[in-house]
Amino acid sequence: MVETNMTTHDREIEIKALLTKQKATAFREAYLDLHVYEQAQIFVDLDKTQRARLYRYLTPEEVGDMFNAIEEEPQDVVGYFKEMPLKYAGEVIYEMYTDNAVDILAYADPQDLNEYLHHVPQEAANEIREMLHYEDKTAGAIMSTEYVAITANQTVRSALQVVKKEALDAETIYYIYVIEDENKLQGVLTLRDLLTNDDDVLISDLMNTPVMSVRVDEDQAEVAQTIRDYNFLALPVTDFDDTLIGIINVDDIIDVIDEESAEDYSGFAGVDVENTPANPFRAAWSRLPWSLGLLILGLATAVVIEHYQALIQDDSTLIIFIAMIMGAAGNAGTQSLAVAARRLTNKEDESESFGKLILAEVWAGLLVGLASGLVFALIAGWWQHNYLLGLVLGLALMLSIATANLLGCLVPWGLDRIGIDSSVVPGALIATVSDVSSVILYFGLVQVFLRWMV
Amino acid sequence: MVETNMTTHDREIEIKALLTKQKATAFREAYLDLHVYEQAQIFVDLDKTQRARLYRYLTPEEVGDMFNAIEEEPQDVVGYFKEMPLKYAGEVIYEMYTDNAVDILAYADPQDLNEYLHHVPQEAANEIREMLHYEDKTAGAIMSTEYVAITANQTVRSALQVVKKEALDAETIYYIYVIEDENKLQGVLTLRDLLTNDDDVLISDLMNTPVMSVRVDEDQAEVAQTIRDYNFLALPVTDFDDTLIGIINVDDIIDVIDEESAEDYSGFAGVDVENTPANPFRAAWSRLPWSLGLLILGLATAVVIEHYQALIQDDSTLIIFIAMIMGAAGNAGTQSLAVAARRLTNKEDESESFGKLILAEVWAGLLVGLASGLVFALIAGWWQHNYLLGLVLGLALMLSIATANLLGCLVPWGLDRIGIDSSVVPGALIATVSDVSSVILYFGLVQVFLRWMV
Repeated sequence: MVETNMTTHDREIEIKALLTKQKATAFREAYLDLHVYEQAQIFVDLDKTQRARLYRYLTPEEVGDMFNAIEEEPQDVVGYFKEMPLKYAGEVIYEMYTDNAVDILAYADPQDLNEYLHHVPQEAANEIREMLHYEDKTAGAIMSTEYVAITANQTVRSALQVVKKEALDAETIYYIYVIEDENKLQGVLTLRDLLTNDDDVLISDLMNTPVMSVRVDEDQAEVAQTIRDYNFLALPVTDFDDTLIGIINVDDIIDVIDEESAEDYSGFAGVDVENTPANPFRAAWSRLPWSLGLLILGLATAVVIEHYQALIQDDSTLIIFIAMIMGAAGNAGTQSLAVAARRLTNKEDESESFGKLILAEVWAGLLVGLASGLVFALIAGWWQHNYLLGLVLGLALMLSIATANLLGCLVPWGLDRIGIDSSVVPGALIATVSDVSSVILYFGLVQVFLRWMV
Repeated sequence: MVETNMTTHDREIEIKALLTKQKATAFREAYLDLHVYEQAQIFVDLDKTQRARLYRYLTPEEVGDMFNAIEEEPQDVVGYFKEMPLKYAGEVIYEMYTDNAVDILAYADPQDLNEYLHHVPQEAANEIREMLHYEDKTAGAIMSTEYVAITANQTVRSALQVVKKEALDAETIYYIYVIEDENKLQGVLTLRDLLTNDDDVLISDLMNTPVMSVRVDEDQAEVAQTIRDYNFLALPVTDFDDTLIGIINVDDIIDVIDEESAEDYSGFAGVDVENTPANPFRAAWSRLPWSLGLLILGLATAVVIEHYQALIQDDSTLIIFIAMIMGAAGNAGTQSLAVAARRLTNKEDESESFGKLILAEVWAGLLVGLASGLVFALIAGWWQHNYLLGLVLGLALMLSIATANLLGCLVPWGLDRIGIDSSVVPGALIATVSDVSSVILYFGLVQVFLRWMV
């Protein structure tokens, strides 16, 4: 990083001081000199009085630009609008990119929303209302309506005029979309195409067709995949008539990718790693249902062990190694789960290939189990001077690991079949279920070999 | 998706058929009509004969463009160069963006590399050799050297001339970098800035300074964070003298983000989810060391249980619930690990705040443990008609969960302190260690309460 970055903290102190001292001009100079991202970082650290002054010292346009870069949760940001005069709030909203404004306004009270939008020009207000209807996590919810559109019968010269005119408002001017009657999406070209061709060339001779586009109801994860694969900077969004209604920019897609990967990680870990409440009571409360659920599920292990209590009473050596078997199988099963869930999330799944995956995981489980079982049998046999017990333990370990791997694949696959996102299966679920299968397998084998063991 | 996407499979069949029938012209027409990403997708499905024909039918420039979009692992792609005539390979390499070519050439035999580079123009060959020295996962390794640079005393008009000239080669023309003597990075402006200003304006009046930039040895994850925060499309890379030596584009950053998030997920799961060998023997082999290691670590549980064997012999009821305690504590500990590792990876860690996190996790553990312990005590007490046992079990559960949470925070924190990436701590490690602490806590408590229990 260049040195500008080193002094972020100092600048924040300086800027807060200027607000406290009510130095409007000096504040404007220092604050507006920063990148909007840095402005936003400082803004969210201000107290209420400081924010009130900031609204007085900055224009709604300046605040709107900065609000585009705020990274707080939208449900928190919406509160800032309530602090502003209504007209000011409306103007801030109008200045923001529609997709960003909509994200936040989705959390506004209906009454507040109406009052803000009353101060937004009619057309923009309608657009915002319309976008508020798109379902969360679809293309419609993350698209922006500020794009550059031209028609195929224009020349490069006139297209460049349009680009220059739109350059101040459009979120990107680097892709230019070609539309025909009723806004139907017809082609696309890049600003690079415009700059490298003569002024008199017709757009129709230059544009790329057909255009890759996404439908407004498409899942945001699919949109991200397309942008990732094709290295696009933006992707047009159409409605059900192929009418161009917006574009999705690569910076919004980066947020989607982060969000999706945090969800996968959180799902597997069984805890929301992005929004951990700092308050331990809340944290405990949010984890409790799941912990209790697994505890109840784990009761099955107690039922099984109680069932074989007489055996243990006769020979307590039997119980010494039970924790090792359960632990090893649980670990193996969660590994399989990770592999299987990842495969299902990346949609590479066609039933046939997933069948192969299951088979491969079970085989891998048998092999890992065979090797660890052998080691285990020797250690246990030598330690307890009982190689038959060692054999039973080794066999139980092998079968438990293979079963755990099977469970690790089957559970997410089954959920995926019935339409539940397989990435929400936590490793802990597989570990708990495999605890149950492991004790059943172990004591089942003990039962079988019992006559030779005692 | 528009309909073009529906028929990917058909087009692939058609294109392969054209290669088989040796229809060079028809092949060129159909193939070059596709997006390079789609070209690459088809290319990697071709067999050796088909590829040999493709090299004959396409120019090195066309193949180079397509190679920029190949998503296979670089160690696999490097083999394709060996199939080409040396001169052809050199020309393909020359046509590719330097960062992509370098990624692949990092896996070439030194001798092959020399022969390819012999056919690349001197300057470009030197650049490639230089970039091959940058360490993996640093800014230098992912940067591209195709950027647009101008000087501050140029006008907008002459800057636009430069942009137009460079437009065919540069990876992005949307950011234009301003350099002074000896390539020192001085400022930046966007193509948007150029287009929205009069032709006679001086660049020095227009450019943004200071420029956010990254040093060539900076970690790629940090670069990704900056691009993400500031919504940049590209970021300049400088060497230790602030000399501009390359840029990193947002599409390369998306790959970095994917890579890093897959690594975090894999680390936590204890298995590489991106590169799972299809062959179960290889899969088993890669998982075996870790599985055996944890099995040996788990031996500690057996040692503890054996130590208390006499107690179990006296009253086998004691052992019925042991699996439930270990399971619940292991699950809680891996949740804490996920939260802690995420916090450490996102570098929000300042020692003080991480101390707070540990405290919060232990508190959350005590609270979850208290609630589940209560439920557990009632179930176990009622079932076994022994409420004192229930009390001991509940207490053990509570302490085990809190201990597991503490371990889940301390282990990644400790590794982070000694410079080991905390995202590589698998949940299975915490689960296994917490198995040990759980049996110790449980039997310790049994020992304490023994006189009243029997």
